[in-house]
Amino acid sequence: MGRVVIDVMFKPEILDPQGKAVAGALARLGFTEFTAARQGKRFELQVDGEVTEEVLDRAREAAATLLGNPVIEDVVRVAAAPEGDAQ
Amino acid sequence: MGRVVIDVMFKPEILDPQGKAVAGALARLGFTEFTAARQGKRFELQVDGEVTEEVLDRAREAAATLLGNPVIEDVVRVAAAPEGDAQ
Repeated sequence: MGRVVIDVMFKPEILDPQGKAVAGALARLGFTEFTAARQGKRFELQVDGEVTEEVLDRAREAAATLLGNPVIEDVVRVAAAPEGDAQ
Repeated sequence: MGRVVIDVMFKPEILDPQGKAVAGALARLGFTEFTAARQGKRFELQVDGEVTEEVLDRAREAAATLLGNPVIEDVVRVAAAPEGDAQ
């Protein structure tokens, strides 16, 4: 049983209010080494068998169709989840 | 200028309605190879210098304090973003 991880982030030119809020909160809590923050989405899709190249292609298709909005978001990663990864 | 990537997912025993909605939509769109889906958060924190082990430690602290709720969420990854990674 495999899992595909898909990460979607706003494009750099798109305003990210959640990321701005996180950056402000980090600064208030004393985490001053972090100068900016952006927040995006991580999806984990489960498949019954192995994560083959065909499964990754279908996941890329799903990411482009449903999981990300190509006008404002970039799919930054589509990869098989490593075995030892939590969840 | 480096970036730290932090991934936060609901714990497996916590109901994830967004993930359920994604799984339903995938099935309706014909992506039947994916049997389940979960949705979490991906944060990218920017630092001025290199991503050192100390920076990663601080990022883990920030993740535990602010970015994830330890009662219902797991921080599944804290890592330096690879150079070639988009955004």
